[in-house]
Amino acid sequence: VTDTTAPAAPNPHGDAPATTQPGPPPPLREVAEDVRRRTAAEEARTIVAGSNVATLASLSTDGHPWGSFVTYGTLADGSPVLCLSTMAEHGRNLPRDPRASLVVATRAGDNDPLDSGRVTLAGTAEAATGLELDDARDAYKAAVQGAEAFMDFGDFTTYVLRVARVRWVGGFGRMDSTDAASYAAAQPDPVAVSAPYAVAHLNEDHADSLLEMAQALAGYTDATAARCTAADRYGLDLVVSTPRGRAPTRVGFAEPIIAPNGLRSATVELARRAKAVLAG
Amino acid sequence: VTDTTAPAAPNPHGDAPATTQPGPPPPLREVAEDVRRRTAAEEARTIVAGSNVATLASLSTDGHPWGSFVTYGTLADGSPVLCLSTMAEHGRNLPRDPRASLVVATRAGDNDPLDSGRVTLAGTAEAATGLELDDARDAYKAAVQGAEAFMDFGDFTTYVLRVARVRWVGGFGRMDSTDAASYAAAQPDPVAVSAPYAVAHLNEDHADSLLEMAQALAGYTDATAARCTAADRYGLDLVVSTPRGRAPTRVGFAEPIIAPNGLRSATVELARRAKAVLAG
Repeated sequence: VTDTTAPAAPNPHGDAPATTQPGPPPPLREVAEDVRRRTAAEEARTIVAGSNVATLASLSTDGHPWGSFVTYGTLADGSPVLCLSTMAEHGRNLPRDPRASLVVATRAGDNDPLDSGRVTLAGTAEAATGLELDDARDAYKAAVQGAEAFMDFGDFTTYVLRVARVRWVGGFGRMDSTDAASYAAAQPDPVAVSAPYAVAHLNEDHADSLLEMAQALAGYTDATAARCTAADRYGLDLVVSTPRGRAPTRVGFAEPIIAPNGLRSATVELARRAKAVLAG
Repeated sequence: VTDTTAPAAPNPHGDAPATTQPGPPPPLREVAEDVRRRTAAEEARTIVAGSNVATLASLSTDGHPWGSFVTYGTLADGSPVLCLSTMAEHGRNLPRDPRASLVVATRAGDNDPLDSGRVTLAGTAEAATGLELDDARDAYKAAVQGAEAFMDFGDFTTYVLRVARVRWVGGFGRMDSTDAASYAAAQPDPVAVSAPYAVAHLNEDHADSLLEMAQALAGYTDATAARCTAADRYGLDLVVSTPRGRAPTRVGFAEPIIAPNGLRSATVELARRAKAVLAG
């Protein structure tokens, strides 16, 4: 029996063309419920929290859309903070027309850039004043090294982007829109920074545990191998190999992780739980 | 004598505030003429040639500027080629209003992102047809891995961005605008890819040659050390240390480099020329 059936090639825009290809094999034992995933709002907040560079789209005098590179900080509710000079075109655009959107993209590294996460925050840019100005300045300075050197020059204004509409694309076939309230209420994933290391470590040193998770917790009782492809505060994404072909699946942590260093203990609990199921 | 006078802190928008700080020390011997630098058009072409990911600014139904992540290829005249689906908002925006701009940013790596190169190309996006469509498709496929898998779906259109206006920012205090004709006529720097390695190699293994270049060719006869900060088809950027402080300077190749592997021989010629001046 060979094991070469890969999941069907994805349409990068999420709409599968009519096809007769079989899908990936289902689990052999029913799994209670879908494992929780980050919402679009959480994905967006996580991407925005993970960078300090973005592209701003504003409107030039003649209404032409004008894109420009910016650095940004983030307020507690996820609102981006910009610090722009009227010597730059974007800094002259916003006082005339505050409509703007901000695009933050994760770095694809060696991966397919179309399969990488990005988010568009559309809204209006408002010059910060009063108490919010202090917050906004602190957020910008915390995010942008050396901001003190220029943000007090008279030609600079500190803006808060009032987010009205959010569009998140996570990669092939993973995308959704969300609204301002959901975006503001969501939290960035605390383990986003440590996840890539954890994924590499699990695949290198704990392939046996991943296999047990796939067999015991994801219903793939015939799995012969399992590889972790992503980790987040709610669980692990796996690709399992079975005699029936390969399939993507997911296993969930007992509780959502709330601390940046929480991936290890959550994964240990998952591994113990899988071992207990297989033993029992 | 100490050597701690750094060049004055740069205003990231290029406009120096009134200051009483002395500038960097001038050369002690007059140098014939300024060493040629890449034009804004050449800088823009080089940045565009060095990537395949960008942010597109287009106009939503209500005229709101909409930013979105895109991949692109490049025609021989530097016109970007996009391949967009009507399932995505940008793909519905352009048929309604072709005004757009495209922002390409170089990756700052560990450097200050505000000191990194980026360019905005503003113009109108036109669906490619006829012979140009073949060119555009080839350019897109050459730049975007796996493009064959989606670009023939019925919801995708291949666009050429007709560039009308170009704004280049090279980093602190280095920025300029250029027009469509200059952009189209310019060539990307053939040594852009190899330059970072060459710069590291020069600093690690040929500090003596860099010092001789600074002394003999840049007029800093009192230089005690020189570090290369950038290399391009026309020459090397150096920072020289002297008893009078540190200063940025530049030395030029005998001829502009036209081949991707041309940095080594051009630099060897520069080193020989410096040694000959000092010996003579």
